[in-house]
Order: sequence, then structure tokens, then C-alpha cells
Amino acid sequence: MNLADCSSHSATARLLHFGSPGAIYLRRFVGSLHVGRCGSNPTHVKTLRLRSNPPKTLTVTAAMASEAEVAASAKIIDGKMVAKEIRDEITTEVSRMKDAIGVVPGLAVMLIGERKDSATYVRNKKKACESVGINSFEVRLPEDSAETEVLKFISDFNDDPAVHGILVQLPLPKHMNEQNILNAVSIEKDVDGFHPLNIGRLAMRGREPSFVPCTPKGCIELLHRYGFQIKGKKAVVIGRSNIVGMPAALLLQREDATVTIVHSRTQNPEQIVKEADIVISAVGQPDMVRGTWLKPGAVVIDVGINPVEVRRLPLRLVGDVCYEEARKVVSAITPVPGGVGPMTIAMLLSNTLSSAKRIHNFQ
Amino acid sequence: MNLADCSSHSATARLLHFGSPGAIYLRRFVGSLHVGRCGSNPTHVKTLRLRSNPPKTLTVTAAMASEAEVAASAKIIDGKMVAKEIRDEITTEVSRMKDAIGVVPGLAVMLIGERKDSATYVRNKKKACESVGINSFEVRLPEDSAETEVLKFISDFNDDPAVHGILVQLPLPKHMNEQNILNAVSIEKDVDGFHPLNIGRLAMRGREPSFVPCTPKGCIELLHRYGFQIKGKKAVVIGRSNIVGMPAALLLQREDATVTIVHSRTQNPEQIVKEADIVISAVGQPDMVRGTWLKPGAVVIDVGINPVEVRRLPLRLVGDVCYEEARKVVSAITPVPGGVGPMTIAMLLSNTLSSAKRIHNFQ
Repeated sequence: MNLADCSSHSATARLLHFGSPGAIYLRRFVGSLHVGRCGSNPTHVKTLRLRSNPPKTLTVTAAMASEAEVAASAKIIDGKMVAKEIRDEITTEVSRMKDAIGVVPGLAVMLIGERKDSATYVRNKKKACESVGINSFEVRLPEDSAETEVLKFISDFNDDPAVHGILVQLPLPKHMNEQNILNAVSIEKDVDGFHPLNIGRLAMRGREPSFVPCTPKGCIELLHRYGFQIKGKKAVVIGRSNIVGMPAALLLQREDATVTIVHSRTQNPEQIVKEADIVISAVGQPDMVRGTWLKPGAVVIDVGINPVEVRRLPLRLVGDVCYEEARKVVSAITPVPGGVGPMTIAMLLSNTLSSAKRIHNFQ
Repeated sequence: MNLADCSSHSATARLLHFGSPGAIYLRRFVGSLHVGRCGSNPTHVKTLRLRSNPPKTLTVTAAMASEAEVAASAKIIDGKMVAKEIRDEITTEVSRMKDAIGVVPGLAVMLIGERKDSATYVRNKKKACESVGINSFEVRLPEDSAETEVLKFISDFNDDPAVHGILVQLPLPKHMNEQNILNAVSIEKDVDGFHPLNIGRLAMRGREPSFVPCTPKGCIELLHRYGFQIKGKKAVVIGRSNIVGMPAALLLQREDATVTIVHSRTQNPEQIVKEADIVISAVGQPDMVRGTWLKPGAVVIDVGINPVEVRRLPLRLVGDVCYEEARKVVSAITPVPGGVGPMTIAMLLSNTLSSAKRIHNFQ
């Protein structure tokens, strides 16, 4: 358990934006870390009732500490388990659709360039598709491809009736115009939900987006499935990126929370976060949000996945929130890893299924 | 000065949404009002330096009260004067464009049905166009027109090179689908800025909307022209309508304020408003925001235009904010009328001019 001390990360903490849209990026934390008490080793078991139909009792884990700490520790919001539950539901629906109308949902993923992290994300998406019975189509193009070549593939996928979702893995090579390429994806197949028309509909009362961006959708889904009330609650979203922070705020707003977005220009962010019943953090700064920032009893959804290096120890992933401190203050928190991460791909599959259902008018 | 007491309005105050988009609607306040100390009679004169190029010293007025009150009273943000300044700038630009390339900006306004308030708004827009040299085109259709007929006119205006902005006066007759009709307006001529693609771009970092909705744009323009800092400030927007509250919040966010939207489901709105350096209120509830809700030194932009009836006295317009109380607490406030109201039409003219410049690539 003696891995790192949150205070050493936070000494250099600033609010940053995610570099670019796509999956959650891993930011490399460079700097010396004191060896102290941070990190989690889930061994303590709690049971928690999830809101689902029919309700299920699930086993969740909380990080082990002293007896006194255990008494005060938060429920763990188990994204891995919820994501599995969702994948199971999708598997059933994909199968039902195939049996009823002979259609199998299809997701096309485009990878341009040789980035290893991007290749891993694409591989994981492909695997996830296979696991639920969704067809996946993959296009890999070299780093120096022309933008027109990418646009041609997108155009073909737009017209292909076997493809119901199109995802262009970001970031793109620098010579390409991301906006042009994302705008070329048909709004009906924009399963990433990044099209401004989708974001506009998300922001507007009385409008419905075709798709909601996967990571923020996953955050809200966790709150729903664990039965946490959103309506009337004070919510703070830390970070205002196009792919997580802003759409998460818009989703909370749609559910009648009173929402504040905290960002790099916010003065006294800790005071604002301290008032929140619900905190969604998506900045990519390891352990930035300390226990003292949090309101007792708050619910914390930690989107950050930050690799930290501790001398002579393997790379470790931590969230934006200092987990060890937070779990003594809040009522529930997502772990990192195993919180929001697995939900993102589950929501991508969910969006692809929804798209296929909509295109084929299948209920 | 003995007109009404803010407390009598506020006794029944609830946060409401604007009924439907378009210009600012007048809501009829029904209920008995005690005769007390509320209302404004601007007679006290102050001077205030506006941020413009070149800077101008302008004369602004503050409500008259006792000597002690005058010492503590807020600057009045004079929307009528700023709107005139903007109209003068537009007149110059329209003339320059005509001389240089022979193009006169044109605004098409459609009025369907016989609503008197809508007819007034349309007449005012036409007059405003004339006053700055913008051509106006007007279509009036009877209440029972078919939706297809409206769509045909919109389509013609979309194709008409003399038309650079299209505005459909809302609300529409009940048998028409507002969404269909607004979506039919070409994004390049959507000077109202209500198209979800525009709202999406407004919400997204790195994207630029073609047009910003006129009333919220007017609010921010007032803050700019009076030189109030937005970056890093805590801002609260009261109301989350598609036409004012939400886009106002997105605009403040774009300018690096830390923004909270307060709405009908917000618990303890007064506590949240009390923390704000900038308050934009757009709910249509007379005198709902009391002096005690406001942080000393805050800047208040009051979008509400609410008619109140006091027995045996003519109908009087008041804002969402209890002006008499607020002006003793805040550093600056817009009056009602004469605050945001005149800015809305000025911004519509500004959007029409921008559209003509963009279409004809005129700098």
C-alpha cells in the first residue's frame, strides 16, 4: 500500500484539457514522487443494490485500510461490472435483432498512422464488438495518407448499409484537418457523438441528440445504474473538453442538476468542488482533487486515467481524484482503473446497436 | 416612486422557463401588489467610460434616491445608448459595403398569424433595418396557413441572393412544427442563431458558430463595451432556455468565466446567485432576484421584461431583478426597460451585416 502520496502529485497540479478527442488518453506524469500512502488494493467486500430491472444485488469492493478507515470508506462504483452487465444486455439485443430481421449491427473503425496507444484502443474496440456479436470493419492507413483518401473511406462507410457506426480514431496525423474529417461522418452514423449538431441537440431543451459521446454517457449511466439521484443536486464537472467535460455538464443539466464547470481559469476550484453533491472529474491530472476538496457524502466519478511513475516500481494508473483521501470523505467513488474506463467502450457498443435499430426501425 | 414592493412579487416567485423562442416575451403578472418602494425614475447622472475604439465618455443615469442611497447606488448599464452606438457602427459599415461592392444586406422576416405582440416585434425589426440601411423583406401569412407554404417561402429566401438573414417570428401557430421550420432555414442565413449546429459550435472549443443568438450576444456585448472582466469570474445564469439562458452560459464559458446555470429545479438558488460576480437573469419572473441574493459589487444583466399591474396605475415593466434593492448592492446593473431589450434588435442587425459580409467575402 505504500505507493505514493497524493500531495506530491498535487504540488504541481494544474487543470489541463484533454489533448484531443477520442478515447481517454494516458498522460505521462513526469516528476519525483514521494513514497507514501496512496493507491488502492481492493480486498474489502461490500454489497450494494444496483437499480436495474430486475434489481440485482452485486458485490463491490472497497480498498482495504485500518478498521477505522474501513468504517468511513466509500462505496466503490464498479464500472467493470456495470460495463459487463451492459455488454450482456447488448449481446441479447444483437441476437434478438439478428433473429427477427436478419440484421447484424456493424461498426467501422479507422486508424491512420502508427501510434501504439491508438492501435491498442482500436484492437480493444474490435474485441469488444466481437464479444457482443457486432460486426467490426477496420481500415488502417499509413501516417502519410492523404486527407482525401480518409474522406473517401468515410464516404464509402456512410453509404454502406452494413455499417451503422463510424469511428475515426483520434488523434489524426498533424497534416489532416480533424474538423473536416469528423464532419464528413454521416450524422446518422456518428456513434462517437462528436458532431456539433449532436452537441447542439444535447445542449437544447426539447431536442434529442442522435448519439451521446461515449465517456460522458458512461458517467451518467453509472449514476443511473447505482440509483444516485441527479435531479436537484449540485454537480461540478472538472474540465471542459469537447469529448468529456462539456457533454457531461450538458447531460447533468438535462437531468435537472445545477451544474458548474470548473476549468483551468477557475479561481479557487477547491471551494467550488467542495459544494458539489456530484463530481465528475475529467482533466488528466493525477490525484489533483484532494480529499479536502470534497463534500462529505458526495458521489465522485473520476474520468482521469493517469500513469504515474514511482522509482523502481511499475507504471501505475491513478485518477484525477486522490482515491485514498477521497474514499474517506465521499459516499461513493469510481476506482481507476475499473471505473469509467470500461464504460466508454460499452457505450460505444450501445450507440452502435441504437444506430442499427434506428436505421432499420427495429424496436 | 411609490409603485410596488419587490417582496410582494417575490412571495410567489418561482423559476420559470421562457415559453418559446423568439423575442423577449412579456408575461402578465397576476396578483395583488402592495404599494411600496420599487420602480425607477432615472434622474441622477453619472459618467462612465465605455471600452470602445476610440474610447468615448458617456453619460449614464442612476435611479434617484436619498443622498445616502445615491452614494451606494450602482452604475446603470445603458443598453439603449450602447444599442444606438452599435446601430451607428452598422450604418457606417452598410454604407461602406454598398459603396465598395454594391451589395446591401437584406433581412427577411416571416410572420404567421395575427398575434399583436409578434406584429409589434416584426414592425420594430423592419424599422430598425430601415434606420441602418439594411433591406427588409416581410412575409405575412394567415394563422391557418399550411406548414408547406411556410417551408416554400423559407426555401425561396434560402436561394435569394438579396437575402442574407432569415427570421421566422415565434411563436408559430400550434399546428406547425417549430423544429421543422427552424431547421429549414439555411445555416448560412440563420441570423437568430437557433439552429442546433450553431448551438453545438457555440458549446465546443475550437469551433465557431456562424451566428450567436441575439439576446445573449447582446448581454455579453454590454459586458464588453463597459469593460467588465469576464475571464476567471464566477458567473451565474438564471434560466436555461434555448434562446437566452443556455447560449448565455455557453458564451460566458467561452470567455473563461466559471459558469453555473440556476433553474427551476435548483435548490437554494439565492445562495448560488450570492456567490456570482456576474449575474445574467432570464426567467421572466418580476423582481424575483432580491437584493439579498446578490454579492456586493456584482454586475447584473437583467433580461426579464415583465409587465406588472398595480391597481389604478398603468402597466409597468420590471425585470427579473428587484432593481431598487439591487442597485444598492451591486456595482452595475441594466435597467428594465432600456437595458438588454434594445440590444437584441441591434444584435440582429449585426448578425445580418456579418452574414452579408461573409457571403460576399467582404472584410
